[in-house]
Amino acid sequence: MTSTETLALKDVLAAGDRLAAESARFAGLGWMRGTSGNLSEVVSRDPLRLAVTASGLDKGELRASDIAVVDGAGAAVAVDGLTSLRPSAEAGLHARVAAVTGADAVVHVHSLNAVVAGHHWPEGVRLRDLEMLKGIGRRAHDDEVVVPVIPNSQDMAELGDRFEDAYEQGTPAVIVASHGLYAWGSDLTHARHVTECLDWLLGYTVATAR
Amino acid sequence: MTSTETLALKDVLAAGDRLAAESARFAGLGWMRGTSGNLSEVVSRDPLRLAVTASGLDKGELRASDIAVVDGAGAAVAVDGLTSLRPSAEAGLHARVAAVTGADAVVHVHSLNAVVAGHHWPEGVRLRDLEMLKGIGRRAHDDEVVVPVIPNSQDMAELGDRFEDAYEQGTPAVIVASHGLYAWGSDLTHARHVTECLDWLLGYTVATAR
Amino acid sequence: MTSTETLALKDVLAAGDRLAAESARFAGLGWMRGTSGNLSEVVSRDPLRLAVTASGLDKGELRASDIAVVDGAGAAVAVDGLTSLRPSAEAGLHARVAAVTGADAVVHVHSLNAVVAGHHWPEGVRLRDLEMLKGIGRRAHDDEVVVPVIPNSQDMAELGDRFEDAYEQGTPAVIVASHGLYAWGSDLTHARHVTECLDWLLGYTVATAR
Amino acid sequence: MTSTETLALKDVLAAGDRLAAESARFAGLGWMRGTSGNLSEVVSRDPLRLAVTASGLDKGELRASDIAVVDGAGAAVAVDGLTSLRPSAEAGLHARVAAVTGADAVVHVHSLNAVVAGHHWPEGVRLRDLEMLKGIGRRAHDDEVVVPVIPNSQDMAELGDRFEDAYEQGTPAVIVASHGLYAWGSDLTHARHVTECLDWLLGYTVATAR
Repeated sequence: MTSTETLALKDVLAAGDRLAAESARFAGLGWMRGTSGNLSEVVSRDPLRLAVTASGLDKGELRASDIAVVDGAGAAVAVDGLTSLRPSAEAGLHARVAAVTGADAVVHVHSLNAVVAGHHWPEGVRLRDLEMLKGIGRRAHDDEVVVPVIPNSQDMAELGDRFEDAYEQGTPAVIVASHGLYAWGSDLTHARHVTECLDWLLGYTVATAR
Repeated sequence: MTSTETLALKDVLAAGDRLAAESARFAGLGWMRGTSGNLSEVVSRDPLRLAVTASGLDKGELRASDIAVVDGAGAAVAVDGLTSLRPSAEAGLHARVAAVTGADAVVHVHSLNAVVAGHHWPEGVRLRDLEMLKGIGRRAHDDEVVVPVIPNSQDMAELGDRFEDAYEQGTPAVIVASHGLYAWGSDLTHARHVTECLDWLLGYTVATAR
Repeated sequence: MTSTETLALKDVLAAGDRLAAESARFAGLGWMRGTSGNLSEVVSRDPLRLAVTASGLDKGELRASDIAVVDGAGAAVAVDGLTSLRPSAEAGLHARVAAVTGADAVVHVHSLNAVVAGHHWPEGVRLRDLEMLKGIGRRAHDDEVVVPVIPNSQDMAELGDRFEDAYEQGTPAVIVASHGLYAWGSDLTHARHVTECLDWLLGYTVATAR
Repeated sequence: MTSTETLALKDVLAAGDRLAAESARFAGLGWMRGTSGNLSEVVSRDPLRLAVTASGLDKGELRASDIAVVDGAGAAVAVDGLTSLRPSAEAGLHARVAAVTGADAVVHVHSLNAVVAGHHWPEGVRLRDLEMLKGIGRRAHDDEVVVPVIPNSQDMAELGDRFEDAYEQGTPAVIVASHGLYAWGSDLTHARHVTECLDWLLGYTVATAR
């Protein structure tokens, strides 16, 4: 771990507080079953640092301090006064998403609609001419959106490369096949909205297929 | 903005309080994902003025003041003491519904059942011989109800014309295809009941089709 | 209205309190949309008197006094100190169920699973070899249960006759086609349990059909 | 009943408190309809003793003392200061699971997804290449998991034998056909996580079949 003098404990804990509240919300929707999923907020851009929910804990019961701070590679970074918890392996993908997209908040949940849609359309899920597309920053008409679907991997560098290859600016999400959804936004509330709207869009698409 | 001397701030805020509570309720049902949907109450009939939930905010977390007051064309109207927020573009359709139907409360939600039903039956959703029809003011027997489905548009005048063409007195709702449901009632509680019953009826119709 | 000297106001309000709490619970499950459904408790057997939730109110927001007391024909009966509300027309069927079955609590909800099952199996819904049948007082093996389905009617005498014709002792429920579920038990908690288990059984049966 | 001097009342009640809270949580998910399902914690290993939720009570409203303590055969054991309630007949299977698997907490719920999956795949439900498998202690790739499905029985010795025949180390659950799910873990929180993830996995498998 490299020490990072620049991060104020109180800013990190404020992020942890928001991440805990948002995790409890998503857990209540059934999108973070068991200890699955993880959320992050960028707490510093230069160097890139993210507060990310700790691994192995119930996402409905997190406290503000149940976080780790990671660098751009997803490795834990010490913060004065914070008892560092083990970051999820997936922290590396959060950092990659934040670096590539410029998003300041990243949501990773195991939305059933997302995984079912990824199963049906492994080449990407086409969404078009739906008002709800405005909720992910797209147009409601004549704007074809393809949510990329990438194969799952336990190697975050590999998964990050797949994400970066599949990423198209303007589509704030990617489905990891047989796994879950990554979605992002300018802050955690925005990322929540994108996630909720995507779940609706994917559920609609599954419900009206065939 | 034209100034409207006739509206008492406290009446407008009382409406805002009801709209916020109702929005939180619908958000909890998953019908106002992201910042989608909007609710309104008529606060004056002559001239027509509506309090409508503000655009771009989380519908589960509105405060009483998170509203705009609009005229019959959906344009914002100043109210003394109220910091006017941006009304949703859809406020124009709310006003049109209130003017045409006489309803004093209008609900617009992104009910999945409504959009799926609109996808299956773009000519209108036929409902007949179901007890729940009494919940939308119709008879449980021998009364054919067709919930109109109109094509989506971003132009509220156009959407309003489509609504008005499709509107039949006695059917307190319209589905906007690929978008959501509009429903209305004599007050916000009544509009809630109509909305809930329609969602049930549309869900039942989808579940029993074929 | 005939006056009934024998009913103590406090017993009637205690029933009203239980009915209000139970209604709110069922409303939360989506089984009492709008103002639909009604619950009752027998408050006197000789003569038969039931406290029944009042008509036209939101079932998630009832107070203890939002009840009517009815006789064996479903007609309102005055109780000293109680402002009588309009009983649901369906109160007559509640009274009939209580008289015929001996149950002291009757639940009528618009469970979607029940109405969908009634649509698929208008001759009655067969349930067999399911552990959950114990929750409605039947055996988990080698015991064929048929939940009767009767045609809907707005005439409670007619509906009561249909119920009585279809009723078999040991099956604590009937589906009214295109309408909802009636279920009953020895008290309101028991009726709740029967209702919950039936909804599960009917949902399972729909989900595994074909 | 044999008296057990070794169990401290406070430890048993602490277990009861956790079991009550967890039951209420599962009841809220619709997995313990009526009075169905039961949860247990091992409170002593030598001799084997489990605190198990009492039979016949609403699982959303248990108090800490609404438990029985049972031995390895599921028979009630007296504990000084505890008014013993009737253990569920299924307590015998809980004890058997705890003895065979070494798990210190056992969950039995009537998850609809589990019973539907058991209906479709009576030879066992195959799960493979899904990230969520990590939530039940398995690998996300190249690891074929078969959740055993055993026929239902009211004889707990017989059901226990079926469980033991079907049990494979590393698969922390079994489906009892036409009945429900048993899942277990090192403590009650772990068993919760396993249960939640299995429900997701089984729901996914049903949703994507065919």
